[in-house]
Amino acid sequence: MTTFVHTLRPRYAEVDAQGVVFNAHWLTYFDEACTRFFESLGFPPATAFFEDFDFMVVKAVLEWRGPAGFDDQVDIAVEPVRFGTSSFDLRFTAGVGQRGVCVGVITYVSVQPGTHESTPIPDNVRAKLEASSA
Amino acid sequence: MTTFVHTLRPRYAEVDAQGVVFNAHWLTYFDEACTRFFESLGFPPATAFFEDFDFMVVKAVLEWRGPAGFDDQVDIAVEPVRFGTSSFDLRFTAGVGQRGVCVGVITYVSVQPGTHESTPIPDNVRAKLEASSA
Amino acid sequence: MTTFVHTLRPRYAEVDAQGVVFNAHWLTYFDEACTRFFESLGFPPATAFFEDFDFMVVKAVLEWRGPAGFDDQVDIAVEPVRFGTSSFDLRFTAGVGQRGVCVGVITYVSVQPGTHESTPIPDNVRAKLEASSA
Amino acid sequence: MTTFVHTLRPRYAEVDAQGVVFNAHWLTYFDEACTRFFESLGFPPATAFFEDFDFMVVKAVLEWRGPAGFDDQVDIAVEPVRFGTSSFDLRFTAGVGQRGVCVGVITYVSVQPGTHESTPIPDNVRAKLEASSA
Repeated sequence: MTTFVHTLRPRYAEVDAQGVVFNAHWLTYFDEACTRFFESLGFPPATAFFEDFDFMVVKAVLEWRGPAGFDDQVDIAVEPVRFGTSSFDLRFTAGVGQRGVCVGVITYVSVQPGTHESTPIPDNVRAKLEASSA
Repeated sequence: MTTFVHTLRPRYAEVDAQGVVFNAHWLTYFDEACTRFFESLGFPPATAFFEDFDFMVVKAVLEWRGPAGFDDQVDIAVEPVRFGTSSFDLRFTAGVGQRGVCVGVITYVSVQPGTHESTPIPDNVRAKLEASSA
Repeated sequence: MTTFVHTLRPRYAEVDAQGVVFNAHWLTYFDEACTRFFESLGFPPATAFFEDFDFMVVKAVLEWRGPAGFDDQVDIAVEPVRFGTSSFDLRFTAGVGQRGVCVGVITYVSVQPGTHESTPIPDNVRAKLEASSA
Repeated sequence: MTTFVHTLRPRYAEVDAQGVVFNAHWLTYFDEACTRFFESLGFPPATAFFEDFDFMVVKAVLEWRGPAGFDDQVDIAVEPVRFGTSSFDLRFTAGVGQRGVCVGVITYVSVQPGTHESTPIPDNVRAKLEASSA
């Protein structure tokens, strides 16, 4: 199984006065990587999300190993690393070339679309996530 | 009539590698000033907006005269400067101390809440806006 | 001369409670399109900018024609439309499919890298910009 | 010792299509709260930071307990909870009224201003932080 990798380039607006990507943007980058990861599993983001299923982030653990700057090529690997009944964890590993930059483990809870009520992860979503972590 | 002034301090995250507030944030600052301006007219933002009335931005003209930096005290004066049947313009004049920083004129169209359909500006909103521009 | 077009997809974080891209993000999108446009002219953003030349935005005129939503394919055409000695205008025309969404004309002033002092547009930059507007 | 509390109101731009503050903004809110916390200790943000001392975020653990919406009054308590030689942790506890919303524990490393080199926490900063956690 090949690990899914999403690539992006930090915008000028996202780099702070220290010349590095401001920390909050990593959660946004990982959300973008999550969107593309689900697309790679066959769930078109703008239609599958919010209609067939939806998730809310309940926990995030982020660790930074080094900086990323304006227009660096940032590669973000996405891997499912834990499954519960109604929640799961994705691990995001971001680097610039061979250099590690930021690792995040984010916990998502499956909710009924349009609500904040937790619900079991839909079977077809679970099957795809499990296959991608094999 | 005293001009309404909203004061804010740029966040570290909003200052770019040139050490100044990135240009896009001025639209966000003016939106925040607009929220507080309507509140000052007696419309609590989280309840009046989207229920009693709603607006969409259709045009913005922004001119920068100088930079604002991290944690500067930015004062933003808000003044209605044009009224149509279903649209109006607000002028936002931002400065740091006596120094001008950014002026924006933003055109809002009144829409039926929950839609993108234009509708006449509600009478009570128009009356308050006109009084504040006297 | 083929017009340069940059394509992006609005992030979930950039869509507001009305379900459309919040207005301020268009300045960020146009900045990203500007970065890629200069790259297409042969100026690698992270090295050419700030070293060989630099620009500050002094004016922006934005008009919205319709909404863009989460993960829409947004195409942004970039065209130089005015040249002065030390400033120039780029026009950004954003659409989703055949539908117009936002047009921006942004005025940039050439500054000495690391300063806010205006300086004539470097000859090699001007030549490339003029060629791309032919 | 009274716990320092910073209050803010989510901007419309920060609320997503689910009607709640998008997760990444909590890191920005906590950064703003950190700025005001250091100011309350006697360190003016725009001058003390980057000149007398500087910090980089190396780890963040965030847990969400419920949503915050547009213009809610969000109170963020800030408390130092760990001290090392060159790093320390701040805990941010955010709520709306009596309802918990988000708790973050963020690890900062003291760096020599203008560099990414770690350095012991300056004595005057340590003394103030320790006093505020008593």
